[in-house]
Amino acid sequence: MNVWDMDILSIILIIMSLLIGFFAIIYSFHLHKKIMKLDPGTKKMQEISEYIHQGSLTFLKKEYKSMTITSLIIAVFLWFFVSKAVAITFVIGTFFSALAGNIGMRSATRANARTAQAASKSINDGLRAAFTSGMVMGMATVGIGLASVIVTYFFFYKDLGVLYGFGLGASLTALFGRVGGGIYTKAADVGADLVGKVEQGIPEDDPRNPATIADNVGDNVGDIAGMGADLFESYVEALIAAMVLGLVFFGEKGIVLPIILTSAGIISTLIGTLFVNTKSGKLYMAIDKGTFASAAIMIIFAFVIMKLYMNNMNLFYATISGLISGVVIGYSTEYMTSTHRRPTQAVAEAATTGPATCLIRGIAISMSSTVIPMLAITAAMLISYYLAGLYGIAISAVGMLSIVGMSLAADAYGPVADNAAGISEMAKMGKQARERTETLDEVGNTMAAECRGLQLGTSALTVLALFASFLELIKAKAGITVINLGDPAVIAGIFIGSIVPFIFSSIVINGVGKAASKMVLEIRRQFHKNKDILKGKAAPDYNKCIEISTDQALKDMIIPGIISLVAPIIIGLWSLEALGGFLIGAITVGIMLAMFMSNAGCSWDNAKKYIEKGNFGGKGSEAHKASVVGDTVGDPLKDTAGPSLDILIKILITSALVFLPFFI
Amino acid sequence: MNVWDMDILSIILIIMSLLIGFFAIIYSFHLHKKIMKLDPGTKKMQEISEYIHQGSLTFLKKEYKSMTITSLIIAVFLWFFVSKAVAITFVIGTFFSALAGNIGMRSATRANARTAQAASKSINDGLRAAFTSGMVMGMATVGIGLASVIVTYFFFYKDLGVLYGFGLGASLTALFGRVGGGIYTKAADVGADLVGKVEQGIPEDDPRNPATIADNVGDNVGDIAGMGADLFESYVEALIAAMVLGLVFFGEKGIVLPIILTSAGIISTLIGTLFVNTKSGKLYMAIDKGTFASAAIMIIFAFVIMKLYMNNMNLFYATISGLISGVVIGYSTEYMTSTHRRPTQAVAEAATTGPATCLIRGIAISMSSTVIPMLAITAAMLISYYLAGLYGIAISAVGMLSIVGMSLAADAYGPVADNAAGISEMAKMGKQARERTETLDEVGNTMAAECRGLQLGTSALTVLALFASFLELIKAKAGITVINLGDPAVIAGIFIGSIVPFIFSSIVINGVGKAASKMVLEIRRQFHKNKDILKGKAAPDYNKCIEISTDQALKDMIIPGIISLVAPIIIGLWSLEALGGFLIGAITVGIMLAMFMSNAGCSWDNAKKYIEKGNFGGKGSEAHKASVVGDTVGDPLKDTAGPSLDILIKILITSALVFLPFFI
Repeated sequence: MNVWDMDILSIILIIMSLLIGFFAIIYSFHLHKKIMKLDPGTKKMQEISEYIHQGSLTFLKKEYKSMTITSLIIAVFLWFFVSKAVAITFVIGTFFSALAGNIGMRSATRANARTAQAASKSINDGLRAAFTSGMVMGMATVGIGLASVIVTYFFFYKDLGVLYGFGLGASLTALFGRVGGGIYTKAADVGADLVGKVEQGIPEDDPRNPATIADNVGDNVGDIAGMGADLFESYVEALIAAMVLGLVFFGEKGIVLPIILTSAGIISTLIGTLFVNTKSGKLYMAIDKGTFASAAIMIIFAFVIMKLYMNNMNLFYATISGLISGVVIGYSTEYMTSTHRRPTQAVAEAATTGPATCLIRGIAISMSSTVIPMLAITAAMLISYYLAGLYGIAISAVGMLSIVGMSLAADAYGPVADNAAGISEMAKMGKQARERTETLDEVGNTMAAECRGLQLGTSALTVLALFASFLELIKAKAGITVINLGDPAVIAGIFIGSIVPFIFSSIVINGVGKAASKMVLEIRRQFHKNKDILKGKAAPDYNKCIEISTDQALKDMIIPGIISLVAPIIIGLWSLEALGGFLIGAITVGIMLAMFMSNAGCSWDNAKKYIEKGNFGGKGSEAHKASVVGDTVGDPLKDTAGPSLDILIKILITSALVFLPFFI
Repeated sequence: MNVWDMDILSIILIIMSLLIGFFAIIYSFHLHKKIMKLDPGTKKMQEISEYIHQGSLTFLKKEYKSMTITSLIIAVFLWFFVSKAVAITFVIGTFFSALAGNIGMRSATRANARTAQAASKSINDGLRAAFTSGMVMGMATVGIGLASVIVTYFFFYKDLGVLYGFGLGASLTALFGRVGGGIYTKAADVGADLVGKVEQGIPEDDPRNPATIADNVGDNVGDIAGMGADLFESYVEALIAAMVLGLVFFGEKGIVLPIILTSAGIISTLIGTLFVNTKSGKLYMAIDKGTFASAAIMIIFAFVIMKLYMNNMNLFYATISGLISGVVIGYSTEYMTSTHRRPTQAVAEAATTGPATCLIRGIAISMSSTVIPMLAITAAMLISYYLAGLYGIAISAVGMLSIVGMSLAADAYGPVADNAAGISEMAKMGKQARERTETLDEVGNTMAAECRGLQLGTSALTVLALFASFLELIKAKAGITVINLGDPAVIAGIFIGSIVPFIFSSIVINGVGKAASKMVLEIRRQFHKNKDILKGKAAPDYNKCIEISTDQALKDMIIPGIISLVAPIIIGLWSLEALGGFLIGAITVGIMLAMFMSNAGCSWDNAKKYIEKGNFGGKGSEAHKASVVGDTVGDPLKDTAGPSLDILIKILITSALVFLPFFI
């Protein structure tokens, strides 16, 4: 439906939303300028920060090159076999998703040294600097997301399904960012630790270690650009799915509603940031206060919108169910993986009898940690469906994602603080600065744990909204109204779908292993070739390590990328019913496996941290050594495979949606 | 349909089948007598064997007590809320399944010392003794299975669905045997190793270790009685599902066919045993030859039966597809986990850089090991369905299970050989005897790996046949012809179903951990209280350790047991469509997770063995220590959680089938 054929109120609301989107982008630039005005610290700090900045750009450039080639191939295929419009929206989606990630990363790699410098003044200043950088990412993502979807809609209003091309573009960027970035960051991390900490006994972030810059680059590449692309993808895909379903069930208002809910979310987030401060209470509460404030304001907005604009309170309750489910997921994930809680302490305790018992306990606990989140997702889906149909599920996803700007800021805060800690170590800023940046880093870990659960929840609801759209589409285009579980083809689809997350994880985990081995060999080679490096008299070749991580990460993405794009096409060509089963099988197993792996990794990581705080013998004890094994095993699970599955389930279904005309 | 109303040919065939079943039982007693006539060895050996025998009976007695109470509660519920007939068949099923396990275990605990003694003469004699004991188990199981189903059918021919009560009874026994037995065996094993090998540095199976008898009892309890009950369950449930579906699709002949296929399988197995010998080739080929021979003979029987009796060759191809899929699963499992193959050697290689890399590699490889088996199961399902409908799936399962007597014998051979090795160590029979029994033990491990894949394949096809029966039943009794994946209730069912295998595994793994800790404390207490035990001057209190394992195993079964029986009832009371989704969700995730855990455990176990053979530094090297961590982590995964999921998926669906009248 053409915007200009709409009711005048709807037109005004859409234009206002577009302006809010633009405002968010401008505001993000304003915040970035604010960061640039901060004191960048000593020359040494600036030098290290520049290394990280350049290293990150090196990765991005190579990634963009691979992405451009891949997306051109896909675009050509779409142009000839699906439709020209889809090919165009696909390229647009790829571009804007990449742009959002680029802005966030450029800002983060400028903010790290400034955060370290600010923290040397006061911890509140440090928090402000890192969080502001996170907000650059948050605002850029939601602003670009909302504005680009609205503008694309202006041009391609005739068939809303075309917008899924935009979604697939965002998925592709997310795949490169999350999977490639995930392999990159862990290869550098594991490689640096194995030779540096274990073999040579030098501390973490020691400038003598050739992989130390790659390690810090990895934080930005994986946790800023990758995570941003992941949430950008959920954000725009939930929005698009709600618009597509909205048109079917509510006509004009059905399209407008998700747009204004999203823009209301941006305003709520902006107001919420005012509450972020360290004036009272614990440090980690500083950002939490902002999140709660945004959520509360968003609920009021949603109430007003549903009452006055839609006159449908069931949709309001659907939105709330999404938000509550998000809170439940976040809280239960935090409970199962936090150092302050019983489950992780039990994992730490099990480490006293060795690495094996620590691992077994962690596996058992993280298996049970999937129960509450999965029930919360199921409940949100059922409640919003019974209240407001398939559209309700999509609106519930939009509601959950509306204030994602805040989560993004909180999550992007982490790597900046982590980098700041690294820089303060490398630039020898002294004990106090180091301790303060480490405290900030710890807050980042808590944030990350809460956000990780929420991210998965948003992905799950987004995917369900997309699946609802899939159901509508096969009804409209192929006349299929039922996907019968009694049909063995559908069960076969589910079975085959269930394989995909396993094989995908397997490849990605192996990728980390391979890249880490290469990194180990390279570090050893440098130490061996020039003895002055270890003495601190000669600078190591940081770029070589960055190159290894970059090349291997991009190489190891090829097969997972092909699987996730092509598998739905092959199954779809066989049978659309089997494709429905395939998607549900992959989604179900993908969600469960992702939660299991993420939580297991976090649990081991935090068990180690709990021991390092002096429990069960503290640092250097046998229990600590055992917990380090757990932490290392968990690394690729929580930072590479888990988040990658998050992307996988989304890309499978957008691929199915986009290529649907090709099957029929 | 009443047997006596059938065609005279059908009556003759059924009576013949019944006689074959009785013959198998008698033959099993004959074999048992043969074993009893063998030389039981020295007084010391007899004493140890008696300890193990009594320990096993102690466990069985307590298990039967708990089982009797549980089954009476269920029977009363069935009597009042479902039907009297179902209550009766349920009790019958429980009884006969327990009987089969009992016979197998009594024989195995008599054969262990005799195998050790025979092996001291020649390795062929040792193999013969252990395999004969395995055959007692194999023949008792298939004979009792076939005969008891036929006789039950004689009495309850009016409504074949009543036979699912028999299946549920078998499921309950299997649950106690596999889950309880699995916890028992690993608690004893891990506890004995942790204090014995690690803390005190005394070898495995050392008589000074108070848990050593419990460890040997565990082999019999978990791997003989538990595994037997598992396959008994698949065996009778596939048979019953095929009879129920057969009546719907083919009438009289549809009932008779699975019965005669099963009895043909028994004859094939008996002939196949003649080929088991060590005359030529490698030792592990001895039993393989028997398996191949049975399969070949079974194919000929199936061909003749389908041609002459059914005049339907599509059913023949369906049977073949099941058999081929079983072979593919067995082979690919063997490939992924064998010491002779690249994947496991890669896991061993990864151990050279520490336990973490060994674990990561193992996780990645076993994740990918699920692909081929799952595709094979899917292919068998689709092929047999397209050839012969839902009945085809059931017949394919019956075909795969028909020669299960041979797998049982091969699999039960393992624990007997393992016990024999233990006895030869404890009774200080000398180096040659010890080495020979260890060689026999190794063959057992290869057998177990091949069988494990096959077991899962049979369970998967059995469950699919039961699901087909579920579809027919809800059509007949509730008029539901479609379970639509587009209905969020069905997706909710799938999501909730996917949780069950995770929470079930978590509880079971934790159970092992708790029991092992108690065991550790008890062993330490004994060593501390009486210093003479470690000096070998005083006998430890074996019974105390047996008691701990027994009590904890039975206690930790309660919650998993309740979940697996009650969850389908709750979902079913809500919605039958959701129940359909729930079952498929649990089956899919259950199969994948079971394969992943079993293969991971085997892979680590064999990587350790590969290193122990002298590779990567051999015994005592850092790589070896790392691989021991992997092996310990894998123990509860492969021997407790993995096999338990095998039971879970079957008990969920039989519970759904049996309680169906209660929902409607």
